[in-house]
Amino acid sequence: MNPITWNKSKPNHFVAIGRLCIDLNANEINRPMEETVTFTKYVGGSPANICIGMSRLGLRTGFIGKVANDQMGRFITGYLDREGIDRTGVSVDRTGAVTGLAFTEIKSPTDCSILMYRDNAADLLLEQEEVPEEVIAQSQMLLISGTALAKSPSREAVFQALEYAKRHGVVIAFDLDYRPYTWTSAEETAAYYNLAAEKCDILLGTREEFDMMERFVHNPDRDDRVTAARWFDHSAQIVIIKHGKEGSIAYTKDGASHRAESYPAKVVKTFGAGDSYAAGFLYGLMQGWTISDSMAFGSAAACIVISSHSCSDAMPTVEQVKDYIERCNRGEIVANS
Amino acid sequence: MNPITWNKSKPNHFVAIGRLCIDLNANEINRPMEETVTFTKYVGGSPANICIGMSRLGLRTGFIGKVANDQMGRFITGYLDREGIDRTGVSVDRTGAVTGLAFTEIKSPTDCSILMYRDNAADLLLEQEEVPEEVIAQSQMLLISGTALAKSPSREAVFQALEYAKRHGVVIAFDLDYRPYTWTSAEETAAYYNLAAEKCDILLGTREEFDMMERFVHNPDRDDRVTAARWFDHSAQIVIIKHGKEGSIAYTKDGASHRAESYPAKVVKTFGAGDSYAAGFLYGLMQGWTISDSMAFGSAAACIVISSHSCSDAMPTVEQVKDYIERCNRGEIVANS
Amino acid sequence: MNPITWNKSKPNHFVAIGRLCIDLNANEINRPMEETVTFTKYVGGSPANICIGMSRLGLRTGFIGKVANDQMGRFITGYLDREGIDRTGVSVDRTGAVTGLAFTEIKSPTDCSILMYRDNAADLLLEQEEVPEEVIAQSQMLLISGTALAKSPSREAVFQALEYAKRHGVVIAFDLDYRPYTWTSAEETAAYYNLAAEKCDILLGTREEFDMMERFVHNPDRDDRVTAARWFDHSAQIVIIKHGKEGSIAYTKDGASHRAESYPAKVVKTFGAGDSYAAGFLYGLMQGWTISDSMAFGSAAACIVISSHSCSDAMPTVEQVKDYIERCNRGEIVANS
Amino acid sequence: MNPITWNKSKPNHFVAIGRLCIDLNANEINRPMEETVTFTKYVGGSPANICIGMSRLGLRTGFIGKVANDQMGRFITGYLDREGIDRTGVSVDRTGAVTGLAFTEIKSPTDCSILMYRDNAADLLLEQEEVPEEVIAQSQMLLISGTALAKSPSREAVFQALEYAKRHGVVIAFDLDYRPYTWTSAEETAAYYNLAAEKCDILLGTREEFDMMERFVHNPDRDDRVTAARWFDHSAQIVIIKHGKEGSIAYTKDGASHRAESYPAKVVKTFGAGDSYAAGFLYGLMQGWTISDSMAFGSAAACIVISSHSCSDAMPTVEQVKDYIERCNRGEIVANS
Repeated sequence: MNPITWNKSKPNHFVAIGRLCIDLNANEINRPMEETVTFTKYVGGSPANICIGMSRLGLRTGFIGKVANDQMGRFITGYLDREGIDRTGVSVDRTGAVTGLAFTEIKSPTDCSILMYRDNAADLLLEQEEVPEEVIAQSQMLLISGTALAKSPSREAVFQALEYAKRHGVVIAFDLDYRPYTWTSAEETAAYYNLAAEKCDILLGTREEFDMMERFVHNPDRDDRVTAARWFDHSAQIVIIKHGKEGSIAYTKDGASHRAESYPAKVVKTFGAGDSYAAGFLYGLMQGWTISDSMAFGSAAACIVISSHSCSDAMPTVEQVKDYIERCNRGEIVANS
Repeated sequence: MNPITWNKSKPNHFVAIGRLCIDLNANEINRPMEETVTFTKYVGGSPANICIGMSRLGLRTGFIGKVANDQMGRFITGYLDREGIDRTGVSVDRTGAVTGLAFTEIKSPTDCSILMYRDNAADLLLEQEEVPEEVIAQSQMLLISGTALAKSPSREAVFQALEYAKRHGVVIAFDLDYRPYTWTSAEETAAYYNLAAEKCDILLGTREEFDMMERFVHNPDRDDRVTAARWFDHSAQIVIIKHGKEGSIAYTKDGASHRAESYPAKVVKTFGAGDSYAAGFLYGLMQGWTISDSMAFGSAAACIVISSHSCSDAMPTVEQVKDYIERCNRGEIVANS
Repeated sequence: MNPITWNKSKPNHFVAIGRLCIDLNANEINRPMEETVTFTKYVGGSPANICIGMSRLGLRTGFIGKVANDQMGRFITGYLDREGIDRTGVSVDRTGAVTGLAFTEIKSPTDCSILMYRDNAADLLLEQEEVPEEVIAQSQMLLISGTALAKSPSREAVFQALEYAKRHGVVIAFDLDYRPYTWTSAEETAAYYNLAAEKCDILLGTREEFDMMERFVHNPDRDDRVTAARWFDHSAQIVIIKHGKEGSIAYTKDGASHRAESYPAKVVKTFGAGDSYAAGFLYGLMQGWTISDSMAFGSAAACIVISSHSCSDAMPTVEQVKDYIERCNRGEIVANS
Repeated sequence: MNPITWNKSKPNHFVAIGRLCIDLNANEINRPMEETVTFTKYVGGSPANICIGMSRLGLRTGFIGKVANDQMGRFITGYLDREGIDRTGVSVDRTGAVTGLAFTEIKSPTDCSILMYRDNAADLLLEQEEVPEEVIAQSQMLLISGTALAKSPSREAVFQALEYAKRHGVVIAFDLDYRPYTWTSAEETAAYYNLAAEKCDILLGTREEFDMMERFVHNPDRDDRVTAARWFDHSAQIVIIKHGKEGSIAYTKDGASHRAESYPAKVVKTFGAGDSYAAGFLYGLMQGWTISDSMAFGSAAACIVISSHSCSDAMPTVEQVKDYIERCNRGEIVANS
């Protein structure tokens, strides 16, 4: 039921490539950012969050990316070190680029937004030669994330990483993570998402993200099965399509589909839900669990993150996730609103 | 002794044009930014600080600039409103530009630095047509600041403002405020600083800033008198050259030079010293005080700002400055270190 | 021996996508361009030349590209019309782009160079939506050319064309045509050449062009068989590697290699040799000829072009090529120098 | 009546700064460029043409500019050498820029147009440090031209040249030569034209060019006297406003205005009229002639150029101009159409 085969002889479990930046979370919540005055600094960026999540779950992890040569960049590398994430693949920019920023605004648990600073961001300056073949070759899984495809040279660095992963038999997961503000056009976005997706074993994204990829494809009913089937013609083994509150469906190459339990949560904000879900789900797959069990584990991990103030810093351990599931099963956790 | 004549028939005292942005001051001081975790948000930017300073000193003020169409931009315009600064001349960007940021780091009272986010900053997108002739025509003084000359179209907007000020007999002050990171080259910087300075009545800058402007001028001994004389051939009446701890000297077109008292301070950080000095000095000139008295008032205003955590928010009232001078005269304030 | 299967039910033989520009050939030859005074205007650009060549050989052809909205652009479309090339797929730029120019300099038959004008060239502005799926679907072969991959949005337009060709069972030929001046870096070049080559049935390039594509590949001896084998793992059926004067070798997926006769020529200049070779070779393949016979036909076509002053305008008919081969066989043509 | 005083102790008469490029004139005239096939190469660019004109008239001249490091650039410097123009001030680009091109199209004597190639043009890359102070200091007149103000760093180089001319008492002439295609916006254009014009002794331009400069000025009736008066408040001594077929009017600071004779011509094309007029007029002023006589001399020089195929290459000698005037006076030349 779990169609992925891991090469257990590789010493490391997981390496992610892409965005590595700073979240500045407003300390004053439930109000617009015009009225917030103080902010707390965290490491952020979708693949960074997933990598931190995997590390908290006990896996041997690494990161490939680029940080600014400033205090923000050094804050990030210090954090990776403390989390035990190998940063052999993290380069330091020498061009005067800055660290991407995300100021969060939490007007209510369901009305959250982000103000991004992405101009001249160091993470998009990662170059092909800075992608260490050996780091990928020694990992059982590579995770790529859509934002890193938005601009050169980071875009080419991701394709280089895909090439190395293919060459060395590394399982590839693609978290679509589509952020329109870094892209030139929806057409360009579709082009590179599709070129990358062709090479991946596991795809995770929302229905809207898959729609964007189907700009030049005939799927008038936005049919999940049509969407998934397209990738099974290439390298994919598992395609997860998320439908927000209606839950996620996983399709596998054998034609099966899978749904999982969902859990209640006392939601503070929605940020980080997807990243913690991805970490939990991929962790489950690596344990050889069924797809449904892996999805359930991801859902519980997501509940923990959205119940707290940060994303990266709130990523749970295995014990915390299991405990959360048990408490839900005992009816001890009830959703707000 | 005060060579400036003000057109008192104009209803407003002061209008500034240029940078309008956000300071994010680390709450944890006396440590590197790698170790700071929370930040407090203030309005910032040199001309904005001076304008806020003038408003606190009781003058009728206005601002000409551009803010991002986001929460940061609205925070700024809300602050200007609360300070009673006319913002007829403040446009809102429609291109997706962001608000410039300055993260401050205070390692010690004398070791302070700033991490700037200036890519795609809204303030540099102010256009010529957005400079309201009437707002300038109705003001007794226009203040320009060097940073706004760094890029088009803001650069041309400043020259437009200078043209309007000339046309309507408005006194022009130029706070050099040279920030290398926004400029393409030192040569380009010199070109536009000189073109602007030719049109100004009052110039304020450090020795190093005037050196930059003399890149293609023969002044091998970096002689202040040579520097000042060059501008008296154009429009200048007063040239103030700051020599850091050794104090400032004001030169006037009649060949005289002036120095002022300095005051002790319990320094928290050095940021904002120049802006509060400029506000205090220009305020004194507008009262018809002597140059030396105006300089002393500026110095005392600066002491108050560098003794506190913020720049804009710490700008003093007339009473606070006078009180500070009296306390210094009574020996009640002693410098740290 | 000819491994390509053509879908003869498609009404058109051939469509090319990419560069479409102007050659300005110095009328005064055998001297440096500093001394040439008059120039003659021709349609140029590698895929345009090949397409014109195919048309002259009697095939039903089309072109997909973009021309400037000026006299040069209209000169090009007029020429395509006169050659009977369908230009449904040729868009007209609306941004003020110009037509790419190539000034040729012929110092001697073996010392030729080109002075290129490629800044803001219209052909590189072709967009994905401007690639007509139907034109590709109705053609038996699509030819892509490396230069069109050099910049967005033309790069994405080529990938879109590849996607359509795959979708509709169209044979894809890739003429590498690497021109360093349009590319940002050798690494970026390798990335996109490789992504495109994976999808192609026929690859034609020089040893140096394949070297460039192997920047991140282990092939220390620059071994043609290693080079060719890499692409047989993807879609390729035929890989032709050109070794200049030492001739070309064609490798096929079945492990065989093929060489062809070469012919003497009275060389005026070397420009256009590759384009006429490609046209002749691909024409032969489409006739079902053996690879060696197709290569010989291409070689003879190339001899005709390099014996004349222009490239596009000198593309021969089938009769002219056959006649040239016969005259060579009768010993009537002897090489110069 | 000639208000300009020349410093005759300076060894050189004239130096021009700015555009230096290539004209490609269609050999086939009286037809659209879609139908022209061959082109002849000439040196071009307004200030280059004027400088060549001044040299032909027997003056000691120099040029300050930048050429591409290619065959086109070397063609230009070779031509300057042959014309006896000092090119100490002509730098060679090292960034891969190209030579600006102007393809001319002559549909009829009165319907002429130009297709420009100005992207990445070397002449706009002239830097401030490349402007030789000594070359300007040793010249009696500096000519600037509007196109060189269109982009950095050429724009700053022109302001540097103006600064040197002011410093060394060199008369400054400004040929407005407004070409919209190189400018970002009409507002930006007005800003820099005005900043430059303030510093010039002689202004020459069309009514439309002065209109452009008055974008932010109140002159609703487009009154020539209002236009001229504005510049007399700065440095100007002579302002020439051209009204096409209705002739030109020269205004002088003393309030006088001047018109000149015009001459008939057998017009081939209109290109080069303004440049040859400027050369002739400025030559006359340098001889101490009256303004009217200088204007007449310029008009006759212009007639000669528009009666021939090229611009630069057709610039006349003094004898040719005088001969033309005499023949007109004898009624030997009659206008076409």
